Amino acid sequence: MSKIDRRLAELGIILPKPWNITIPANLAASLVRVRGKSVFVSGHVPIAADGSPAGPFGRVGAEVTPEQGQEAARLALIGILASLKAKLGDLDRIGAWLRVYGMVWGAPDFAGCPAVLNGASLAIHDVFGPEIGDHARVAIGVAATPFNAPLEIEAQLELA
Amino acid sequence: MSKIDRRLAELGIILPKPWNITIPANLAASLVRVRGKSVFVSGHVPIAADGSPAGPFGRVGAEVTPEQGQEAARLALIGILASLKAKLGDLDRIGAWLRVYGMVWGAPDFAGCPAVLNGASLAIHDVFGPEIGDHARVAIGVAATPFNAPLEIEAQLELA
Amino acid sequence: MSKIDRRLAELGIILPKPWNITIPANLAASLVRVRGKSVFVSGHVPIAADGSPAGPFGRVGAEVTPEQGQEAARLALIGILASLKAKLGDLDRIGAWLRVYGMVWGAPDFAGCPAVLNGASLAIHDVFGPEIGDHARVAIGVAATPFNAPLEIEAQLELA
Repeated sequence: MSKIDRRLAELGIILPKPWNITIPANLAASLVRVRGKSVFVSGHVPIAADGSPAGPFGRVGAEVTPEQGQEAARLALIGILASLKAKLGDLDRIGAWLRVYGMVWGAPDFAGCPAVLNGASLAIHDVFGPEIGDHARVAIGVAATPFNAPLEIEAQLELA
Repeated sequence: MSKIDRRLAELGIILPKPWNITIPANLAASLVRVRGKSVFVSGHVPIAADGSPAGPFGRVGAEVTPEQGQEAARLALIGILASLKAKLGDLDRIGAWLRVYGMVWGAPDFAGCPAVLNGASLAIHDVFGPEIGDHARVAIGVAATPFNAPLEIEAQLELA
Repeated sequence: MSKIDRRLAELGIILPKPWNITIPANLAASLVRVRGKSVFVSGHVPIAADGSPAGPFGRVGAEVTPEQGQEAARLALIGILASLKAKLGDLDRIGAWLRVYGMVWGAPDFAGCPAVLNGASLAIHDVFGPEIGDHARVAIGVAATPFNAPLEIEAQLELA
């Protein structure tokens, strides 16, 4: 059992099936692009256990509470882990998180994006520790997301 | 004739003049930044043959239909190819597409950004094939674009 | 005295304290992530001398004028320099700016993002010159920013 798989088990995190991008729209791009040691992760909405977009849907600060938004960020991050595992085979191959770009669909004037995105950043630190898990981040409000998800997360990493 | 130029001719794609950034606003940045093998492409709106922003203008899902949005994404991508050719001299120097970041100016609650951005992703695959053309992608709704363009596309690539 | 410090003094630019991310929200990420020669800078709002978010606050084109927006972009960039200096020790270690991603919180239909972001791009060129300072850029309108700042800037650089 790999180190990261063991850590996921300790934390009680069960990876979903990788995002099933044919539910409901086809995507003419890849969920993860690897080139040399560089890893680019496509924007991920929160994913349910079966790989479909997970609710609640709607704007943070309106249909979705900030606390639900934080959990949604955690689910999006765990969905990214599933996509990374499907692509890399073993999450221990990850040498460094570099950049996390968080896009929140918020109610008008909702300014709490950083706290919402902490749901993803804290999960990265929990699973990978402070050295591998350290990352720069953006937390911004967007006007729309695929599937009316409350948020979407993009990431860049480096292989060990 | 380079391989990619031949492929563009086969597909009937004629590159526009590179985006004329003095129409109508000066840009204190470069359209393409190359450093070592890394290539960073500035946000590009759809470009007409003369290098000026191409219509239709407005929000996808309102003034602009989703089908027109898809064509706009294709035009923005072809404009990126023009900028890349002006900078690199030869598009055969491109070794890999890595990341495409698509920003759609949509009507309120317009959630069809991924399908719109497929217009760009499919063009990349048509011209460069599945290995060089593979890329991670984000498709998000933004609140505004330069020139009221329906969308804007940023990209990162690697030289061969 | 380093070359860039001397240039900052010539230009009369005094770096603020690095962004105090505990005012008012904790951030579970780093302001700057360095890995090898790659430098990823988190989204920065305009920063005052004491490291707190600097006003004016609000939407460009509404509560904040485009000229104030341009100055806000300059302040966000100078705040990024403060974070870079705190992380790198010496700004002369910067070999190249690569990418600047500018997110403007604008009034509905505000399309003047590129001119606003020039406030940051011109400051980069003033301080680092055209070779090191050259960069690709995106200037886009977003639906919300942390602290209701008029804009936020993310960047990627490379060490010498």
